[in-house]
Amino acid sequence: MNLSIQVFVTGGTFDKTYNELTGNLFFKETHLHEMLHLGRSNLDLSISTLMMKDSLDFVEEDRAIIASACNTSNAERIVITHGTDTMTVTALYLQKHCPNKTIVLTGAMIPYKFGSSDGLFNLGSALAFAQTLPAGTYVAMNGRWFYGNNVRKNKQTGLFEEIN
Amino acid sequence: MNLSIQVFVTGGTFDKTYNELTGNLFFKETHLHEMLHLGRSNLDLSISTLMMKDSLDFVEEDRAIIASACNTSNAERIVITHGTDTMTVTALYLQKHCPNKTIVLTGAMIPYKFGSSDGLFNLGSALAFAQTLPAGTYVAMNGRWFYGNNVRKNKQTGLFEEIN
Amino acid sequence: MNLSIQVFVTGGTFDKTYNELTGNLFFKETHLHEMLHLGRSNLDLSISTLMMKDSLDFVEEDRAIIASACNTSNAERIVITHGTDTMTVTALYLQKHCPNKTIVLTGAMIPYKFGSSDGLFNLGSALAFAQTLPAGTYVAMNGRWFYGNNVRKNKQTGLFEEIN
Amino acid sequence: MNLSIQVFVTGGTFDKTYNELTGNLFFKETHLHEMLHLGRSNLDLSISTLMMKDSLDFVEEDRAIIASACNTSNAERIVITHGTDTMTVTALYLQKHCPNKTIVLTGAMIPYKFGSSDGLFNLGSALAFAQTLPAGTYVAMNGRWFYGNNVRKNKQTGLFEEIN
Repeated sequence: MNLSIQVFVTGGTFDKTYNELTGNLFFKETHLHEMLHLGRSNLDLSISTLMMKDSLDFVEEDRAIIASACNTSNAERIVITHGTDTMTVTALYLQKHCPNKTIVLTGAMIPYKFGSSDGLFNLGSALAFAQTLPAGTYVAMNGRWFYGNNVRKNKQTGLFEEIN
Repeated sequence: MNLSIQVFVTGGTFDKTYNELTGNLFFKETHLHEMLHLGRSNLDLSISTLMMKDSLDFVEEDRAIIASACNTSNAERIVITHGTDTMTVTALYLQKHCPNKTIVLTGAMIPYKFGSSDGLFNLGSALAFAQTLPAGTYVAMNGRWFYGNNVRKNKQTGLFEEIN
Repeated sequence: MNLSIQVFVTGGTFDKTYNELTGNLFFKETHLHEMLHLGRSNLDLSISTLMMKDSLDFVEEDRAIIASACNTSNAERIVITHGTDTMTVTALYLQKHCPNKTIVLTGAMIPYKFGSSDGLFNLGSALAFAQTLPAGTYVAMNGRWFYGNNVRKNKQTGLFEEIN
Repeated sequence: MNLSIQVFVTGGTFDKTYNELTGNLFFKETHLHEMLHLGRSNLDLSISTLMMKDSLDFVEEDRAIIASACNTSNAERIVITHGTDTMTVTALYLQKHCPNKTIVLTGAMIPYKFGSSDGLFNLGSALAFAQTLPAGTYVAMNGRWFYGNNVRKNKQTGLFEEIN
């Protein structure tokens, strides 16, 4: 069975690129297609970029856009790439506003374009969790899944963990 | 909840390395620990190498060793890294001999050590499927999961697909 | 003939690393040994880190330290890794203060640790130029060599070019 | 001064690629353009593929083709990418048949497409040596240059070294 999955790109470290003229990190376009190609993905995916933002810059309106996109999507199963800094804030928001779908948020600690990124590992696990978990909002990081209302990022270790 | 997962390494393209003195591909040691480190895995894993073989060289005895290791493991959830050429043969074997555990076989089309490997993506998805699928034997490739008794590798495309 | 070459590390994009907890680029330690290992270098090198700075932060005193290190080194041939932004300023300074040695400055537009770095190419060329050019101070970038008093970085293209 | 350099591609480990359907290494097309792009090369290069062969398969006729191409090229400075196994045989041949040009042979111990290749380092050094060494045939490996008639590959260490 090859379930349809909607993927929404919102930015985050995952998609940051190095600007060699300025020495800054910035967003150009998502690397998601390249990553799926690398992973030899044969999933039935619809991919759409909602925004390209550092998640520290997210405002309420951004989360409303994401929730609306989730609710109006035809897909029952959704993966969202998102910056890790406020991923859990968005997860909590979606848990309230999108109760009927399986939504999995993931991201990366290191930009995909840098040699040592966790992005491909996280993407593989997020797409797998999206196919197998029941309706609800989840965070997929560090190989694990968390309920959207019971997860925080530990700023000392960089790891995600349960609140309770 | 952080489920214990047993990982058994059996070789395969996944772990092949280039011998720069002879120009051949060979097995040295598994790259699994390096890959899990890259993926910032925080899973509770036990990792054990059963063999380091090209899966074309597998004989019945190898599969018996794997089945025995699965059945005697304390873990209910098991991931096996395996060459892709006979991965489905082993999956069928384990489905018969290990009915009570969730067993997920995965591998890679390109060695992890080569820049463009699908290995990290597959590992992320296999570990996720192992946490969420019920007892049974599965193959995780191309972002998807397949029942161990209904999957084949398409030798023209390199993709895994259902038989029926 | 295997000439002795002194390598001085001063920082620059070449050696920048991504801090996954803060999302900033920073200096930890030089990647030079790893790069030389990758290049299977069999050169007779002495490697010493003078400082780890963004070259935009260099002050006159930093250049005096580099010049002094060049003049007191036993080696007649010296390679300096340096940020590209003020590499030509340092080259001009060394040309005045270190007239008797072959000094080659090089760097990178993209940090070595990011997949797409020019660092390894530049290091290979700088070490080669250091073995073959007569006494004088040079910049080695873009596969080419430039006299230290006739080179600028084109900020639009990111390429180094002759002034005259 | 931006000297014209002719680059001749002849194959070798440098350009080998992994065939994921068969698990074998093979030649598709040269990675030289990609490598020069990565190195931000701004050299005036003409690039031409003479053959795509494992250098163990080279016969006298292959070397005659290379020598003829060198002698008829407009460029005075030539870089040749070549398998390492018989690189020194070709170097000796070219030293006899192409006395009036600066010819630098280089290659790689690990295919460029594999993460840990020495290819980019060697290419950078070979192009630099081609710009600075006088007429003659040379091998550029391990960061060093060797006279074409005084170099061998040490099969135990994989390093190139002087015969005398």
